[in-house]
Amino acid sequence: MKPIAVVCVSGGMDSAVTAALAAQEHEPAFLHASYGQRTAARERACFERLAEWLGVSRRLVVEIPALKAIGGSSLTDVAIPVRQGSPERDVVPTSYVPFRNAHLLSAATSWAEVLGAHALFIGAVWEDSSGYPDCRPEFYAAFERAIRLGTRPESDIRIVTPVIGLSKAEIVRRGSALGVPFESTWSCYQHDEIACGTCESCRLRLDAFAAAGCADPLRYRTRRHS
Amino acid sequence: MKPIAVVCVSGGMDSAVTAALAAQEHEPAFLHASYGQRTAARERACFERLAEWLGVSRRLVVEIPALKAIGGSSLTDVAIPVRQGSPERDVVPTSYVPFRNAHLLSAATSWAEVLGAHALFIGAVWEDSSGYPDCRPEFYAAFERAIRLGTRPESDIRIVTPVIGLSKAEIVRRGSALGVPFESTWSCYQHDEIACGTCESCRLRLDAFAAAGCADPLRYRTRRHS
Repeated sequence: MKPIAVVCVSGGMDSAVTAALAAQEHEPAFLHASYGQRTAARERACFERLAEWLGVSRRLVVEIPALKAIGGSSLTDVAIPVRQGSPERDVVPTSYVPFRNAHLLSAATSWAEVLGAHALFIGAVWEDSSGYPDCRPEFYAAFERAIRLGTRPESDIRIVTPVIGLSKAEIVRRGSALGVPFESTWSCYQHDEIACGTCESCRLRLDAFAAAGCADPLRYRTRRHS
Repeated sequence: MKPIAVVCVSGGMDSAVTAALAAQEHEPAFLHASYGQRTAARERACFERLAEWLGVSRRLVVEIPALKAIGGSSLTDVAIPVRQGSPERDVVPTSYVPFRNAHLLSAATSWAEVLGAHALFIGAVWEDSSGYPDCRPEFYAAFERAIRLGTRPESDIRIVTPVIGLSKAEIVRRGSALGVPFESTWSCYQHDEIACGTCESCRLRLDAFAAAGCADPLRYRTRRHS
């Protein structure tokens, strides 16, 4: 029997590929968070479809209402517009949800502790990304230390970030090789029905598929490459 | 004008004294979490009364439904009985809520980032406590590093734990000197109306007041000292 691992699955392409990689040597327990983001319903639907694809029965969907209440991000506050175009280097974009990944890791850790899982997977991407500080490798190393010190001595949980150093194009390639159903993933920050194709997340995705030489199965209002 | 600090206020005696200490040099922004614990209603009422006592207008009450959903603790799962008597040394008690304080710190950090606060206070107690791993000083040092790496470069948030090394009796003495309204605090893990006096949290509190030579203004079903 494979050991259990908690996998944070947003429903985006990075977490879908991360889940497929996790499933190679672990039995994944799928964790999804709804935090009042604009495209929550669509992301949740993708989460369920990815769980079905991998035959995952252990699923936990948690609400994190604090993030919506606190705001400070274009994803959770409709008064802040979603930025269009490619991310700028060395600027934290308005889509950064303050310290969001710490909330996810905290929930993943609590669940891992109760399940007796010793690994938690998260699909953070740093090298080729939007520049969110809570996607840096050093953040995960520090958080892993906080987990080791802040949980039961026998819990022994490590954080695995298998795509953190990959380019988005490489993530598409790996996903294609693993048969990831990219039609069951969602990246657009703005719309739930048809992806806009112009927000920073759509742009990163479209560029990634183009660079990988793969077809993105999603429909877009506009397909704008960098 | 004093700088803003986010203060985690559960409504217990340790967080009440922490809040009074925080208010000496900061303008406190009070954060309270409801996570499906048995005595949530009473703790929330104490939070509001403590906020009134210190004249705090910035208040945020967040729900953390993940902790109840995940369970694994006698505080959030009624199928697990609350332990009676004094805590045992070197045993993590069943009242430990898996990695709970990381959820609190994450919410406090997100809020601090949006408010522009550079400090967050939490009333964790280690030396003379129940032995929760997420109350250790080393956990806070590691988490502070995760905050520094996982937030905007300009955020610069430190964690302040002013009572972590104090005995419970010393916390009572400091609180008395600061005029903390202990009648507006709650420690019992078990009941909402009249404190049981026998659970580990009541025992720690009763022992603390006795050792400090102060009268505890709360009513108890039984007053059992160690």
